[in-house]
Amino acid sequence: MSFYAVIPAGGSGKRLWPLSRARAPKFLMPVGAGANLLQQTLARLECLAPPANTYVVTGESHVDRILAEAPALVPDNVLAEPFPMDSGPAIALAAAVIAQRHPGSVMGSFAADHYIPDAASFVDALRVAIRGAERDLLMTIGVEPTRPDPGYGYIHFDAGSEADGVYAVARFKEKPTPAVATAFLSTGEYLWNASMFVWRPEVFLDELRGQDPEMHRGVTSLAAAWDTPDRADALAAIWPTLTRMAVEYLVMEPASDRSRVGTVRGRFRWTDVGDFNTLGEISAPDVHGNVVIGSDEPLPPDGEPGEAADGAVMIKDAKNLVLHPGAGKLLAAIGVEDLAVIDTEDALLICPRDRVQEVKQLVEALSETAHSKLL
Amino acid sequence: MSFYAVIPAGGSGKRLWPLSRARAPKFLMPVGAGANLLQQTLARLECLAPPANTYVVTGESHVDRILAEAPALVPDNVLAEPFPMDSGPAIALAAAVIAQRHPGSVMGSFAADHYIPDAASFVDALRVAIRGAERDLLMTIGVEPTRPDPGYGYIHFDAGSEADGVYAVARFKEKPTPAVATAFLSTGEYLWNASMFVWRPEVFLDELRGQDPEMHRGVTSLAAAWDTPDRADALAAIWPTLTRMAVEYLVMEPASDRSRVGTVRGRFRWTDVGDFNTLGEISAPDVHGNVVIGSDEPLPPDGEPGEAADGAVMIKDAKNLVLHPGAGKLLAAIGVEDLAVIDTEDALLICPRDRVQEVKQLVEALSETAHSKLL
Repeated sequence: MSFYAVIPAGGSGKRLWPLSRARAPKFLMPVGAGANLLQQTLARLECLAPPANTYVVTGESHVDRILAEAPALVPDNVLAEPFPMDSGPAIALAAAVIAQRHPGSVMGSFAADHYIPDAASFVDALRVAIRGAERDLLMTIGVEPTRPDPGYGYIHFDAGSEADGVYAVARFKEKPTPAVATAFLSTGEYLWNASMFVWRPEVFLDELRGQDPEMHRGVTSLAAAWDTPDRADALAAIWPTLTRMAVEYLVMEPASDRSRVGTVRGRFRWTDVGDFNTLGEISAPDVHGNVVIGSDEPLPPDGEPGEAADGAVMIKDAKNLVLHPGAGKLLAAIGVEDLAVIDTEDALLICPRDRVQEVKQLVEALSETAHSKLL
Repeated sequence: MSFYAVIPAGGSGKRLWPLSRARAPKFLMPVGAGANLLQQTLARLECLAPPANTYVVTGESHVDRILAEAPALVPDNVLAEPFPMDSGPAIALAAAVIAQRHPGSVMGSFAADHYIPDAASFVDALRVAIRGAERDLLMTIGVEPTRPDPGYGYIHFDAGSEADGVYAVARFKEKPTPAVATAFLSTGEYLWNASMFVWRPEVFLDELRGQDPEMHRGVTSLAAAWDTPDRADALAAIWPTLTRMAVEYLVMEPASDRSRVGTVRGRFRWTDVGDFNTLGEISAPDVHGNVVIGSDEPLPPDGEPGEAADGAVMIKDAKNLVLHPGAGKLLAAIGVEDLAVIDTEDALLICPRDRVQEVKQLVEALSETAHSKLL
């Protein structure tokens, strides 16, 4: 059975401003050794889904840059949304197009901006998920949690239901309180929801028809028009009518109530790279916990200048910094801790690592002003 | 009796890096409403020393910029040192040149980088000091301390010795410990040493001859050659032989032991603008204590962007920041306190306000490296 990968690459990454911009979204930001998150995602999937079997769903404004950054992608497989509608419509459109072009296949959906350094363990889990999908389950790959993180959603699975590595999913759980997250972990029956889904498109669409018949009709019509001259008209007429909702709510939760959902216990390190704190966590720190985003070079010794990313840094008696020097520029930090300092040509951000969520509101405040060109 | 002002404008202001550079020293940095510290110093002295009566002693590399920033100065009155030698040789050279050109006058020496917003009170104190100098005292203008600052030197005066506003100086005191500074203030007999000196050049040179006869011969020879074609040869031969020492140690302390020194109790606000903390103190803060260097514009409301200096700022839930946005750039700060954030085209500094002294070591560490172009 052939396998197709779908990569929803939406969202501008407001919480990663000013590194991530509307026209330079976070999945195109370099991380670590130079490859951006989209390129890393493609590389991770390549042994099961070569470029010809890979789809990307993204905003129209990103298509050219995505094809430039990932030239092996097939342009016809980059599906452009007229405007963002959350993950439900994006994934449903991809499922409908793949069902039409490649009937009888299995598809998996994987966000463009997740960091998974251990590709081999990920692929092992994906192989198990594909086997579950072949049994007509709506599969998800969960991640074994390593801490009671209240920032993630959770998957409650039935520990006694294991068959060939697949576990039955009882429920999806939204972001819990810290106490509830701790209780989740103590049971050993919860995984992080990493929004990784694997299914036969026909099975998914069948489930969608039951949950949201109008949307099912919509994406089926869109797929029928996709490879014809009618695509633009169909998008203009249908896209705005779809249900703006995450695929978990749209399909997976209702399906889990009907025992149609399975999961794999992914035993790999996984980070949803949403802000400068998580971006710092996926970079290699020096002995003081300092990292430079987009650089694998070791940091210079305390109090000495050294090259870093496109600029240089000099760190003296400072801890747990997430730094990004501007291009060709020296970033000097003395005696500060737990800060993100992100410098770019036209904007500089200073924010404690534990408040980087607030960058989103800052960006939203800018959007109404003369500074909206910085977005 | 005619009065001449001497402004030693030396020192690159290492602790104000990266705003202050070797080629753009701190006394040429804009402060407040646009005038730089040198221009403010000249304006403060102008009613007693018009430009024709004003001398500047500075490094050769600064002469052109000083004349450009203060075009009313007489080029012949800008005395260029071949290399910096502390305040002793700089002031002694000026005294010798003035004694030769304008015998029988009074001169006063005032640093180029001090901030004194109340010019009228300063001039009042200077008038008293000139009267003391006319009685052949070596006068200093002290500043009534408003806090036991361990960062300043002190002048111990005899409170019972007042005559026509002039007090006898018992001793100069180096920077004390905080406890000693507190004890100083409790006596009411200590002033801050603001390195402001007023005397007849002949009296000063006479004192110098007693303390350092070789240096006296050196500066007298230099002055004799100054307005002749021999100036360059004399500088090359003599300048390196002078005693590299502050004028307090060279002349004032020994003279105070011999009851030759008087002081005035200056009752004006005075700041030695040596680092980003003091630079912040002389700027007008918003209600949260935040200031933008080089800008008199009010800061925008919390969480809103607004213009500031040559760039823009957006400050959200932050206190007591000293900020300098890069030109044409937005500096966004969230949830931080008591930091200096100084952005320039090629270097960015982040440092707590209470550690800005350490910027000097940082700059010295840079000087040995490939980054010395940033100095």
